[in-house]
Amino acid sequence: MSILCVGSVALDSVCTPSGEREEALGGSATFFSTSASFFTHVDVVAVVGEDFPAEHLRFLESRGVGLSGLEKRPGRTFRWKGKYGWDLNEAQTLATELNVFESFAPRVPPALAAAEWVFLGNIDPDLQSSVLDQVQKPKLVAADTMNFWISGKPDALRRALGRVDLLFINDSEARQLAGESNVVKAVKAIRRMGPRLVCVKRGEYGALLFLRDVDDGAEFFAAPALPIEEVRDPTGAGDSFAGGFLGSLAAAGSLDAAALRRATVMGSVMASLAVEDFSLDRFRGLTPADIQRRFGQFASLMGLEGPAAKLTPVSAVR
Amino acid sequence: MSILCVGSVALDSVCTPSGEREEALGGSATFFSTSASFFTHVDVVAVVGEDFPAEHLRFLESRGVGLSGLEKRPGRTFRWKGKYGWDLNEAQTLATELNVFESFAPRVPPALAAAEWVFLGNIDPDLQSSVLDQVQKPKLVAADTMNFWISGKPDALRRALGRVDLLFINDSEARQLAGESNVVKAVKAIRRMGPRLVCVKRGEYGALLFLRDVDDGAEFFAAPALPIEEVRDPTGAGDSFAGGFLGSLAAAGSLDAAALRRATVMGSVMASLAVEDFSLDRFRGLTPADIQRRFGQFASLMGLEGPAAKLTPVSAVR
Repeated sequence: MSILCVGSVALDSVCTPSGEREEALGGSATFFSTSASFFTHVDVVAVVGEDFPAEHLRFLESRGVGLSGLEKRPGRTFRWKGKYGWDLNEAQTLATELNVFESFAPRVPPALAAAEWVFLGNIDPDLQSSVLDQVQKPKLVAADTMNFWISGKPDALRRALGRVDLLFINDSEARQLAGESNVVKAVKAIRRMGPRLVCVKRGEYGALLFLRDVDDGAEFFAAPALPIEEVRDPTGAGDSFAGGFLGSLAAAGSLDAAALRRATVMGSVMASLAVEDFSLDRFRGLTPADIQRRFGQFASLMGLEGPAAKLTPVSAVR
Repeated sequence: MSILCVGSVALDSVCTPSGEREEALGGSATFFSTSASFFTHVDVVAVVGEDFPAEHLRFLESRGVGLSGLEKRPGRTFRWKGKYGWDLNEAQTLATELNVFESFAPRVPPALAAAEWVFLGNIDPDLQSSVLDQVQKPKLVAADTMNFWISGKPDALRRALGRVDLLFINDSEARQLAGESNVVKAVKAIRRMGPRLVCVKRGEYGALLFLRDVDDGAEFFAAPALPIEEVRDPTGAGDSFAGGFLGSLAAAGSLDAAALRRATVMGSVMASLAVEDFSLDRFRGLTPADIQRRFGQFASLMGLEGPAAKLTPVSAVR
């Protein structure tokens, strides 16, 4: 039931209309693993520099995240600096310092090669493939990607996608990858590239999961996003979504349609929490009861017959 | 239970990636009343010119739409010509001929002044107010508006909104009207202008209804849009949405939260049908069973616990 996750661990400097933070904990592997850690065990394969603050390692350890695959290399940690404007929809990158991330070659510790659940965070698709070369036979390989790789390394991305079961991808990037503006046609085109499951992330509009081939009776499942009055920092929302999704799925140990529907909502639950504070701060001190309460809000938000009446409890195990 | 609707009746020339139509039946009152006619009786207050084809009148009559408030005036019928690009999201207006609509002064026939349900289509807010001067004490006044009036006649719009119970408004126009990018804050600002119910239309992302003051237990209800592989013509989707919403609500005769949730989905059902063909063609020959089937697709699309199992039948009465 545990998840192997590869991605970035970063120090983010972020400015939003709600305030700013300098060199706060960030990175795709960090958001993903912390979010998923509320549901199951996660091991991280990533790299940090010598300057990486010990308190951040202690935080990840406090969440039970396995750090045997986290290399410490000579040099500085990957840094990202960005700014969000009035509408909070898109980050403007002000500076990227790759530092130790520039020569990152993910090494999966042999003890983790039997991982059943694998998440390939949004990194160079050649590195995503190299992780798959190092694992045995996962039950599910999930991945994320972005416009930078879609336009910059299309062939490498195609090779990686051919080995992916579940792709998380932004709305606009799904259209870009497929060269198709209609979302149904875009999802079908992406499925022909490899992933049989495609989850289209739509930001404040929620997420759309392709279900037709999962014996569900529906072609798609749509989970809304919770309307949130104060989004303090959208950074990491997508990775928190993937963490809640895959964590919930791995905890259920199932790929059936009911588990996939619930996983999509759990992804939205964790993303809705992440954006309420800067960095990973909303996850500090978060309890299973908080997650259960937020899940109930989603059930009420989307309940055709009324607010959530009887709801199977959330399996937030940690 | 019957609805009084004021709006435009037009001849639309539309070009989309799926094809084009010259002078097809269109207009906000036409889409609204036809859509609502599947649920309850609708009377239309509108104007056409001497050239308005008799076949269109026969079509509206075949749907049971009351035409006692449809004036025929000397001159030509209102015409609109528009074009949709690749992404189908926004119409580019190529030509607008107001014709008889230019001097339109809605006159509510005395027999309809007792209407309990009123829909003010997207027209000059002063005309919307003049309709309200002519009706007695409706149970619910619903209205639609657009950026043209928000920026062009803000004071008249404020006066009309002060008398509206339920506002249907596009996502971007809600933000514009409220001067606020966050949708929760925007809805709250709009409620301070008058409407206690606000339904934010989000196109292919569905609709969001503010519920907090309706004793529901949830602040919002989110209905997704059905992902549709071939959108042939998005014209009239918003008015078809409003027609399904208000038709369903008037048929239920209720403003309780359960009826409002169902009405939001029924609005989405009718909009999803409207866009599958040009003009009102999808509504020609449409049956209650077709509507029931589409409603079932929505229940499956949004069902947290799986596809629709037992669903209260749709009260498509006509």
